[in-house]
Amino acid sequence: MNTDINYQTVVRELAGIETTSDRDRLTKLSLDYYHFSPILTDKLQNKRGDLAVFPTTEAEVLQIARLCVKYKLPLTVRGAGTGNYGQCIPLEGGIILDISKMNQIKWLKPGIACVEPGVKMAAFDKKAREIGWELRMAPSTYRTATIGGFVGGGSVGMGSVNYGQISDRGNLRRVRIVTMEEQPQVIELQGDEVKNVLHAYGTTGIITELEISLAPAYPWQEVIAVFDDFMTAAKFGQALSDSGGIVKKLVSIHADPIPRYFTALQNYLPQGKHCALLMVSEYDFAPFQDLVKEYQGEITYSKSASEALKGTSLLEFTWNHTTLHARNVDTNLTYLQTFYFTLERLEKLYQQAGDEIMIHLEFLRAGDKAVPAGLQLIRYTTEARLNEIIRDREVEGAFIANPHVFTIEDGGNKQIDPQKVAFKQKIDPYGLLNPGKMRGYQKPVESSL
Amino acid sequence: MNTDINYQTVVRELAGIETTSDRDRLTKLSLDYYHFSPILTDKLQNKRGDLAVFPTTEAEVLQIARLCVKYKLPLTVRGAGTGNYGQCIPLEGGIILDISKMNQIKWLKPGIACVEPGVKMAAFDKKAREIGWELRMAPSTYRTATIGGFVGGGSVGMGSVNYGQISDRGNLRRVRIVTMEEQPQVIELQGDEVKNVLHAYGTTGIITELEISLAPAYPWQEVIAVFDDFMTAAKFGQALSDSGGIVKKLVSIHADPIPRYFTALQNYLPQGKHCALLMVSEYDFAPFQDLVKEYQGEITYSKSASEALKGTSLLEFTWNHTTLHARNVDTNLTYLQTFYFTLERLEKLYQQAGDEIMIHLEFLRAGDKAVPAGLQLIRYTTEARLNEIIRDREVEGAFIANPHVFTIEDGGNKQIDPQKVAFKQKIDPYGLLNPGKMRGYQKPVESSL
Repeated sequence: MNTDINYQTVVRELAGIETTSDRDRLTKLSLDYYHFSPILTDKLQNKRGDLAVFPTTEAEVLQIARLCVKYKLPLTVRGAGTGNYGQCIPLEGGIILDISKMNQIKWLKPGIACVEPGVKMAAFDKKAREIGWELRMAPSTYRTATIGGFVGGGSVGMGSVNYGQISDRGNLRRVRIVTMEEQPQVIELQGDEVKNVLHAYGTTGIITELEISLAPAYPWQEVIAVFDDFMTAAKFGQALSDSGGIVKKLVSIHADPIPRYFTALQNYLPQGKHCALLMVSEYDFAPFQDLVKEYQGEITYSKSASEALKGTSLLEFTWNHTTLHARNVDTNLTYLQTFYFTLERLEKLYQQAGDEIMIHLEFLRAGDKAVPAGLQLIRYTTEARLNEIIRDREVEGAFIANPHVFTIEDGGNKQIDPQKVAFKQKIDPYGLLNPGKMRGYQKPVESSL
Repeated sequence: MNTDINYQTVVRELAGIETTSDRDRLTKLSLDYYHFSPILTDKLQNKRGDLAVFPTTEAEVLQIARLCVKYKLPLTVRGAGTGNYGQCIPLEGGIILDISKMNQIKWLKPGIACVEPGVKMAAFDKKAREIGWELRMAPSTYRTATIGGFVGGGSVGMGSVNYGQISDRGNLRRVRIVTMEEQPQVIELQGDEVKNVLHAYGTTGIITELEISLAPAYPWQEVIAVFDDFMTAAKFGQALSDSGGIVKKLVSIHADPIPRYFTALQNYLPQGKHCALLMVSEYDFAPFQDLVKEYQGEITYSKSASEALKGTSLLEFTWNHTTLHARNVDTNLTYLQTFYFTLERLEKLYQQAGDEIMIHLEFLRAGDKAVPAGLQLIRYTTEARLNEIIRDREVEGAFIANPHVFTIEDGGNKQIDPQKVAFKQKIDPYGLLNPGKMRGYQKPVESSL
């Protein structure tokens, strides 16, 4: 790794491409929402890139890749920086490649679209809905997150109750990437090959184009239903997820006292009740109401799709936005990504939770069924105690995708993917792409460069 | 029950409504596809209605209902007569009410439509697709079957892998029925109340209008894939059903030698192989191909949606059309409707099947997951042996919806539904609607009339 590089030289060689070495901007462009984790905060808060670049075309990306290889500069790709595990934080400095100016929708047709990585998700949907389609899934950071960033660093979101994870076969169809080989080139990955870049934090190529599958767009009614009892609310969530006859997009259940953190929604959240934040097809609202009634729920908020589009979406209180709202009130809170898989396990863990843990669920399709998962809030004390909480849950059979680590393997994947590692060795022989994030990859020793 | 009625009088009093007492037409209008069952054949082949009526409006249905109550005439409602359990066979003669002339689409909008019961399913879809929608599910008799007939006597079909059964909450929204009370009237059932008429064989009111939920219309690619091994084909079927990222509508797996019965498809069905007959979104064809490859399948037939619409759909080789094709070759064959629920149970029963039983599967959503079900073909010997086969399967935990019985309760429901019975007692106090089909209902003694 070249530590003596004069970035003035680099900037000169990148003539025509926008760059910045402004310290404040670099700070902003070096970080993400890692600060939800006190553990990551300690480890990542001082990491900084040395130069940020803003290419607008694949040709410019190629030019940047060539330069990085020439000078052996680390290169970390970044979308909107809405991740939470430091996915785009440059551990070894170097160049930050911000994709936000590569934001063209190349084509859009029923069922499929081709986009540049910097297209923002909500902006994409606005265009796609003109022809009756929308993204199959999107995270709670939908308004600002980019499609490329979600593919590179995300996994699930609203819509996952229908379409599963972005990594499920069929959701991502094709990617073009720029490699960091001795002679950087553009290659295309199709079908199952796209796994090499999915949730790889940009360690396995610089995505310049993506072909994604779409979902038919429904008018999504946004609804809050409240329940006296948490497990009844959870069972309602499972039942709605399993109701083939009721089309939905978001099923998020929040145990009291989490609703207290939703300041903007207090009018709809009676004290002591547990709430469901939901997006349901307007067409199916009548049978949906019957289901709420069956579970003794009460609808306290209901906005048509067109009304909902004007204000803040309920989406922005679910998934990891729940953590955001809770931390706005109490910065001592952190979270754990948890798959409960069954309501029985959930009930057991709910009963054990005490004051230290607050549970919310987001239902998503995992393999053959919709399962309760969620990002439980934790009152943080020490790293040791957090790890104990993780172990206790794992002993009960829950799966924890640990968000307090910054490598791919230590989070949700749990193990080294030899195929991804081999792919990286091939397309990034100098180990320049987002170094330090793929634990399974051993960087070649300096001298061999 | 009035047995001395002079039907000439009835015809006169129905002036303005088309009727027939032509013996050949009455024979045709009295029967359905009950003859797939040798047991039902013995019991039902000689049942005949005395007069068939062809109302075109709800007002005419009311007029017919009044007359039936006045003369205490049995009334049996009939759609296209594509059922298999004698649903519309008039056990006690009387009037056959053919709904086929009540075939108007009242309105059609995104997500929901309102139709008269005699609208044919394929014809409906042709109209609905003009605005991008289609039926959520339809049986293999789709081309001729009516929507009212399916609601009254059917349950599942293509599309059920996504939307479950027609009885699943949300699929049927509202019905209007004419009652057979002392003063027949029109009433509306909404939401969960529609259960009273679902799969009730017309014993609980004469449906005159239905509001149904729709599905977004995809261009459905029709595909045959063949496999060396049946259980691999079955596992592929489960995997496709569970693939959130691949949109599909029909997943039907046929064990060798069933494919031999598909005369028209022989070019695509290599000797000794097991086949999958499939409908998959054209948009998702690429990832679908990857899935076929993963299970070592070979695609031997693939038609785009527009090509498929021109010829015979693969749908017409699945569900109970399989039985039809098999019986065209060997009339000694009959069938059993079987839910296996798991691949483990399927494998066990497949290994026990021998030559007597041939398995095909149609995957459908049942509660929280897609499960293998199907209408296994049976080489018929005796009723006793058939019942033994049923028992053997039930002992293994499979669920058999017995298609060799003609009451609602003895088939799939297995038990008397007190709510349906109470509803019938209220709206049909003389027990005139399709008498003999609801076992839980006791007809009032004659003298009390």
